[in-house]
This record gives sequence, C-alpha cells and structure tokens, in this order.
Amino acid sequence: MKRNSITILLVAVLVLISCNNTNTSKNASVTTKAEKELIFDRGNKIDSPNFTGDAWLNNLITPEDENRNAVGSVTFSPGSRTSWHSHPAGQIILALNGIGYYQEKGKPVEIIRKGEVVKCPHNIPHWHGASPDSEFIQVAITGRENGPTVWMEPVTDEEYDGYNKD
Amino acid sequence: MKRNSITILLVAVLVLISCNNTNTSKNASVTTKAEKELIFDRGNKIDSPNFTGDAWLNNLITPEDENRNAVGSVTFSPGSRTSWHSHPAGQIILALNGIGYYQEKGKPVEIIRKGEVVKCPHNIPHWHGASPDSEFIQVAITGRENGPTVWMEPVTDEEYDGYNKD
Repeated sequence: MKRNSITILLVAVLVLISCNNTNTSKNASVTTKAEKELIFDRGNKIDSPNFTGDAWLNNLITPEDENRNAVGSVTFSPGSRTSWHSHPAGQIILALNGIGYYQEKGKPVEIIRKGEVVKCPHNIPHWHGASPDSEFIQVAITGRENGPTVWMEPVTDEEYDGYNKD
Repeated sequence: MKRNSITILLVAVLVLISCNNTNTSKNASVTTKAEKELIFDRGNKIDSPNFTGDAWLNNLITPEDENRNAVGSVTFSPGSRTSWHSHPAGQIILALNGIGYYQEKGKPVEIIRKGEVVKCPHNIPHWHGASPDSEFIQVAITGRENGPTVWMEPVTDEEYDGYNKD
C-alpha cells in the first residue's frame, strides 16, 4: 500500500506540473496581447534639448493654414519629461497608457493616469512626462494659431521629485 | 492492484478537473483585463436624430472662449453611423479601436482601423461610423471657432453598403 500511495502522489504531482506549464503559456500569450493593445506606433526618438531622458514622437497631424492643430503621440520612458514650456494657444493632453506627471508653475505635481485628460491654459509654464517607475503615453493636441511652443529651462531632479516630497 | 489503478486514475482526474477550473477563472480574469484595455469610458448613449443605430459619447473636453476645440470619445455599435454633416472648422478623427467607415461626399467609403487618423476638411459633407461587423471607437477633435456642426440627411443603407459594392 505504501508504494501505491507514493505512485498516487507521483501521478498527482506530474499532472499538477503539466497544469502549471499550461498556465504559464496562457499568461505569456496574455502579455503578448497586452503589448498589442498600443494604439499608435511610438514613432521616432526625440533628439531635443527640450527633453530630459528618452522620449519618442509620432506626429499624427501636422498643422497647416486650414487646420491649426498639431496632434502627436508622445511616449515617455520612466523618469523622462519635457522642459518647462508654454503654448500660446494651449494644449490638450489625452493619457493613453501608463502613469505620467504634469505640473503648472507654482502648483504641485499632478499624477496623470490612462484615460485622464489635461487642459493646459494659454501661456502657462508647465511640464509633463512619465513617473519614475512607469512609461507614459499621451496624445497632445496643440493649437498653433498663436505661434509655436515657448521652451524654457529643463525640469531639475528636485522639481521632478517634488511630487514624492509633497 | 486493479483497485489501486482505479484510485490512481481517480486522483489524476480530480487534479485535472481542479486545473481546468483554475484555467477557467484565469481566462475570466483575462477577459476582464481586456475590457479594461479601453482607454475612455464610453459615456452616455446618444439620443439624436443625427445618428443611425446605437452610439455613445464621452465628452472629454468642452470648448470655451480660450480653447475652441471639442474633444469627445464616440463608440459606434456595429452598423451605426452619423448622418451626413460638415464642420465649419474641420475635424480630426483618431481611431482607437475596432473597424470604422468614413466617407466624404462624392468619394468612396474608406475603412478606418485602430491607430489610423482622418482629417476632415472644413465644410466638406461626410459621415463616419462602425463597420457592419465591428464596433468602432474614435476620438473626435472638432474646432468650434467657426460655429457648430452642420447636420444633414441620414446615411441610407444603400450609401452605407456602398463600400461592399465598390
């Protein structure tokens, strides 16, 4: 009987192992699916002194005489952000994925999450980017009718870390 | 021995059943995760003579004196669509999910897929909606600086089916 008990135990363990393998492959396929949930390609890596860290831009709509809005998808790697800047005709930010930071001059840093929307007023210095531990993907709608973006100084680590200190 | 073999078989079957239950619950949770991949809530069902079929609107940005853009997420059920209409300051459509239709007056119906972008010129009559077999989710960016949308006649089934006849 003892040997039979051991056999029963062995069979049970073997079947369980096979189940766990199945689950692992299921989880793997889920990860792949989640990756495919990205809507826009991340575009080209931004090579600009107005960004700190790695970010990518996919220009979706280029403004022209009739349509004055620029629309672009920006992907911020964790910790990356814009410099301080302002938009003469404001900007609308649609958070598509991840967790981002947004701050207007003189106000605390705000967290922006997937599905949230931010409206930057005209000519208000602000910055936005990813949180330290998560990529952030946004669509930015920027009115160009009053002229181009006005770029200012980079966001220091102290300013960026301000959120955690609040 | 025969009875022991039956016991072994029973244990194996019982463990397998428990595994299948685990997988089912995993799949259920996966479905929930997939549903959560939607970025914006679908908002409120549209009750308007300017739409055919069921559609939902989530107003993301309301235009005001400073920001003249309206931004909204629209979810079209399969087969549903807007009436013919035009925008005095044009419109930008960002396809977030599903498969949609877009047609400008006098041109063939175009298919819009997730990740694609459409720019509707000023004052050009057009319509958009879902394809017959797939829901379509779009973000519409509509300039209000030249006045409200001009609504026209509904899109007939013959016009809607035009794509398949081309």
